[in-house]
Amino acid sequence: MESGTQVPSASPGETRPGGRTARTRERVLDAVASLLLEGGYDAVTMDAVAARSGVHRTTVYRRWRDTGGLLADSLDAAREHPWEPPDTGSLLADLVAINRQIVAALTEEPSITRALVAASFRSPTAAQALRSFWEDRYARAAVAVDRAVRRGEAREDIDARHVLIASSAPIFYELVLLRSPVPQDIAERCARVGLAAAAVRS
Amino acid sequence: MESGTQVPSASPGETRPGGRTARTRERVLDAVASLLLEGGYDAVTMDAVAARSGVHRTTVYRRWRDTGGLLADSLDAAREHPWEPPDTGSLLADLVAINRQIVAALTEEPSITRALVAASFRSPTAAQALRSFWEDRYARAAVAVDRAVRRGEAREDIDARHVLIASSAPIFYELVLLRSPVPQDIAERCARVGLAAAAVRS
Repeated sequence: MESGTQVPSASPGETRPGGRTARTRERVLDAVASLLLEGGYDAVTMDAVAARSGVHRTTVYRRWRDTGGLLADSLDAAREHPWEPPDTGSLLADLVAINRQIVAALTEEPSITRALVAASFRSPTAAQALRSFWEDRYARAAVAVDRAVRRGEAREDIDARHVLIASSAPIFYELVLLRSPVPQDIAERCARVGLAAAAVRS
Repeated sequence: MESGTQVPSASPGETRPGGRTARTRERVLDAVASLLLEGGYDAVTMDAVAARSGVHRTTVYRRWRDTGGLLADSLDAAREHPWEPPDTGSLLADLVAINRQIVAALTEEPSITRALVAASFRSPTAAQALRSFWEDRYARAAVAVDRAVRRGEAREDIDARHVLIASSAPIFYELVLLRSPVPQDIAERCARVGLAAAAVRS
């Protein structure tokens, strides 16, 4: 569930994959990521992004409008990047693997994910884009729960999103909101809670 | 677990309960709360707090130093306020009751809790105070799990904090980070996950 900022080669309105519009977007979003990591939300001004990316400020204003627009497009670009949950053969191990990706994204230094979460408290546009990004990841991760149902590991009427939230929410809560020191076994322990949640009738 | 900003009648260094120092603190922290609710972190400037509270700015600077100091003292004051988890007779119902308090604190309009969480991303001092506040609440809430152990509802070696986090983290995650619409049954559903977590060997 890491929110990498890699940008796909084509973007909406772009006919030549990897063409000039896509390259402009890549340069701008790279600038957004580096400014955000360096100085947080306040550093991501339109002028700083234009200067860092070498893209004309008129273009930056026309295509992205404001800081919220730049952050939202960064999240949209991350969402366009292919992601599939690991397929290990058991629900518990799948949840552990997903949780390890989340822990890695939240504890890397600097962490673009933590920076985007912080920015979401400054911009409703960024907050909406962050929500869309995470909901997309939960929708894609649901296949891990579907596989568990097919293997007979989980009930047919299980709510995949509930299981994935039970398994991952404590990690976000501890590392992002409580800012706890990271327990060594947090990915495994929270995955076991997710597995227990899978047995709870929703 | 609501983070009300009610201030106790005595504060450190104050000999007369309800005396002048305590009244000054109460006026200043009331001003902090109202400014935070009106305009977020950026509105809580030392000058605005002095003007709103009617306390001399020299006093505000000397006792609270900066915006982070004001927010941290607001959380310390809330932590000094007595709080005990409800005692309903069963672990599940205790967890539901705690979760309902969390949902109420996060969904009231305006929400001082949500505002303090947002501010914690602007000030490391406020972030540390928020963590202390929550850890204090989890420590106090542990008695609900202890009672469950005595009633034979939970294993002796249970980690109370893990159970309380499993029960409450999805609420914070959904309402604060995902900013999801609030499902009607979220307090109950998440409490059942906490109960399931109580059976997980940690």
